Amino acid sequence: VTKISVIGAGAWGTALAQTYAASGHDVTLWVRETDLAETMRAARENTAFLPGIRLADSLNITPSLEEAARSEVLLLVVPAQFARSTLKSLAPHLKTGTTIVLCAKGIEIATGKLLTDVVAEECPGTSCAVLTGPNFAHEIAGGKPSASTIAAQNIDESKRIQSLLSSKNLRLYAADDVIAAEIAGAVKNVIAIACGIVHGLDLGESARAALVTRGLAEIARLTIAMGGKRETLMGQCGVGDMMLTCSSIKSRNFSFGVLMAEGKTPEEILASRSAVTEGVPTAKATAALAEKLGIDMPIVKTVDACLHHGLGVSEALAALMLRPARAELE
Amino acid sequence: VTKISVIGAGAWGTALAQTYAASGHDVTLWVRETDLAETMRAARENTAFLPGIRLADSLNITPSLEEAARSEVLLLVVPAQFARSTLKSLAPHLKTGTTIVLCAKGIEIATGKLLTDVVAEECPGTSCAVLTGPNFAHEIAGGKPSASTIAAQNIDESKRIQSLLSSKNLRLYAADDVIAAEIAGAVKNVIAIACGIVHGLDLGESARAALVTRGLAEIARLTIAMGGKRETLMGQCGVGDMMLTCSSIKSRNFSFGVLMAEGKTPEEILASRSAVTEGVPTAKATAALAEKLGIDMPIVKTVDACLHHGLGVSEALAALMLRPARAELE
Repeated sequence: VTKISVIGAGAWGTALAQTYAASGHDVTLWVRETDLAETMRAARENTAFLPGIRLADSLNITPSLEEAARSEVLLLVVPAQFARSTLKSLAPHLKTGTTIVLCAKGIEIATGKLLTDVVAEECPGTSCAVLTGPNFAHEIAGGKPSASTIAAQNIDESKRIQSLLSSKNLRLYAADDVIAAEIAGAVKNVIAIACGIVHGLDLGESARAALVTRGLAEIARLTIAMGGKRETLMGQCGVGDMMLTCSSIKSRNFSFGVLMAEGKTPEEILASRSAVTEGVPTAKATAALAEKLGIDMPIVKTVDACLHHGLGVSEALAALMLRPARAELE
Repeated sequence: VTKISVIGAGAWGTALAQTYAASGHDVTLWVRETDLAETMRAARENTAFLPGIRLADSLNITPSLEEAARSEVLLLVVPAQFARSTLKSLAPHLKTGTTIVLCAKGIEIATGKLLTDVVAEECPGTSCAVLTGPNFAHEIAGGKPSASTIAAQNIDESKRIQSLLSSKNLRLYAADDVIAAEIAGAVKNVIAIACGIVHGLDLGESARAALVTRGLAEIARLTIAMGGKRETLMGQCGVGDMMLTCSSIKSRNFSFGVLMAEGKTPEEILASRSAVTEGVPTAKATAALAEKLGIDMPIVKTVDACLHHGLGVSEALAALMLRPARAELE
């Protein structure tokens, strides 16, 4: 039994809390809004973000960050752009040696930094890992079998966390490359928007699969430039997650692209949603990072232009398809 | 303009012939049955394997292998288990320096050999390459955008063939690793059957994505053991093709798995189909190869056991899911 806190009660945070509670761990779920925490505690359901899933009676639900900070392992599942402020609030309450597992996916727009760097800055003295993979919240909360990557600075540390986070239906594969895991987890949401556009424009499944593969090549270029390894991307955090996020209309980022292809503006789509669509800020942050590092990321750049600079989706895709072919690993 | 012959008029062969003819090349399509060749020539349609696609007037259709052998580039698109006999018949008619591009996907059961080795044995003096990627025949024949890997012994040779095989909608990426391309093209059909089973058993999209990723890890192990490179698998021939074949009910191998999950026996499914389901013989050949080389390929082994040794699909999947987790790249 591990004492685990989940910080953030969106769909994925709630699903993780439920999965670990159902697997017999001692789990606390931190909910930012006091009202929502009380409602969830009484109803044993997160009707706003994970409707239809009954939460285990053993799951402790609290709006107190101080209470949540006391666990051995903290899973951070807040929107990426709120990671720093949440970590700042957590920091004074953390014990030395606490393990912080990033389950949020994104790049900080204000600084261009990865979230592992944000953890290191805001919560020194903690051990930081990344949990990312092909996981639909409803499926995992419903007990369906699944897998993810758990990446830490070295393989011994990731194996230690792997054993702390054992569960009935979420199998973790250990990796030693947090950079690749984080970049893949973040940038795949941008590629998923592009795939939604291709799907919405009816360009076919072959075109979508080809685009995902080129998207993975862009992720690999950024990963290598940031100090990560290409082969890490062949795991659940890279190929696995893209396989899911870039092919399913149930993915928030994919469906965002579909709506853009139907002629909706990004502002209209965002206004119609309560949950965060991480690919939207991540496109901006990644395009800026690629520019700064001098890395060719045409798909990311195109999605960013469609989202933030008024480029039309049809012209955008046409421009992408007309690029000359190259050697596969260039 | 390149003089191209396509050897084999199944769905993919016909689609390739149509794509290259529509792109302005001088294309001959070899059809094994004289009757079918005549019908196709008159109707400008392959009603048996690619209905609904009008074939270009410029496309030459012939039942004469001798006539087809005269082209500069030959695309071999016959079922894998018929590759050797077809190459044997072609050999006496080939000019030295003819380029043979393997578009068939499989491993020869009788010998455990890759098809590039079969080409080397039966047609010495030819240059051999592999064309493989995420391509649904109907989409490519219909002019939708797509991409594939073109792999040859070295990058200069693959770039030479890349430029010979330019087309309006099938973009080729050059690679120098025929072994990885061939193994991925063949074995992904086995993984697709497993994914169809997972889909048919309603285990969820997360489980399917995780299974594809572990399937890719098995393909990587075999690839490395055979002398190929892991990173080649990140291209259209590996990740790209799996993204398509392992997620779409339109894939013959995926739908084969779905029918197995519904309780049909492999014999019943095969009897109901006219087109070849390559994953069925490939499972047998790959399981034997893995055994011989001492490589751990649990998904392939399980699919082989379900297909050829009467293992039930539910027990099979349960056994797979219970395996202990490991480090991601082990």
